[in-house]
Amino acid sequence: MDASTLTQYLHDHIPLSKAMQVSVQSLNEDSVVLGAPLAPNINHRDTVFGGSASAVAILAAWSLLHTRLSAAGLSSRLVIQRNTMHYELPIAGNFIARSFFNDAADWPAFVRMLGRKGRARITVSAVLEHAGQDVGHLEGEFVALGPA
Amino acid sequence: MDASTLTQYLHDHIPLSKAMQVSVQSLNEDSVVLGAPLAPNINHRDTVFGGSASAVAILAAWSLLHTRLSAAGLSSRLVIQRNTMHYELPIAGNFIARSFFNDAADWPAFVRMLGRKGRARITVSAVLEHAGQDVGHLEGEFVALGPA
Repeated sequence: MDASTLTQYLHDHIPLSKAMQVSVQSLNEDSVVLGAPLAPNINHRDTVFGGSASAVAILAAWSLLHTRLSAAGLSSRLVIQRNTMHYELPIAGNFIARSFFNDAADWPAFVRMLGRKGRARITVSAVLEHAGQDVGHLEGEFVALGPA
Repeated sequence: MDASTLTQYLHDHIPLSKAMQVSVQSLNEDSVVLGAPLAPNINHRDTVFGGSASAVAILAAWSLLHTRLSAAGLSSRLVIQRNTMHYELPIAGNFIARSFFNDAADWPAFVRMLGRKGRARITVSAVLEHAGQDVGHLEGEFVALGPA
């Protein structure tokens, strides 16, 4: 999957991603970077609404799992179970969400468990960046059920 | 402030609330109830996207603080610092977010601290409901700075 295919997939299937004008800036097996502009995500203080920041971070985390499961030929159903978001600085312009696995060993353990039990849990993080600064952090816990 | 005034305020100042078709269903000094339909908030599995669920819950929590500060004549700046969201069941239709204070004593303590220090912290919760069932929970920590 390439960046423009994933952008189109998100816009077609998750209309809020289109309303937020999210676009995939890069993706590889270790990270997905999503970008979004301020205007559709603005709040009454002319900074990014926390709900938008959080939603873009969740999408970046989900997208990393989705693309990596697809690349591995695993058609599992992904469900978010929990997330924690820390808002560190106001975001007064365009921002990105960069997702990653907390530990490289998490993925093989997750795939092994999914194969053995048909159900596995994994934590994915995302950092929000604006103007070269880290402005927020998400930690999301997902469960994969499958193969679907 | 009444429900339709607050709905209009949200739509005018936080465009994502309009994209999500959020409407204020009721508000009083202890709770704000926001509703949203499935269609603009749907995901690739035909249930509510976690980012939408989380954003509507954040808005409900923020709206409770905003309306109660306004009613008290306090024009503070409200900043979200952290939130945790638990997704308990998939949401396959319209849903509401009902915000509330964890403890009735939190509000007077918050206002006292805001008056004394010009800065105070408070935790607001929101429960998501669909078809009469609790389907998710948010806990959000906000800081008020002010008067602005």
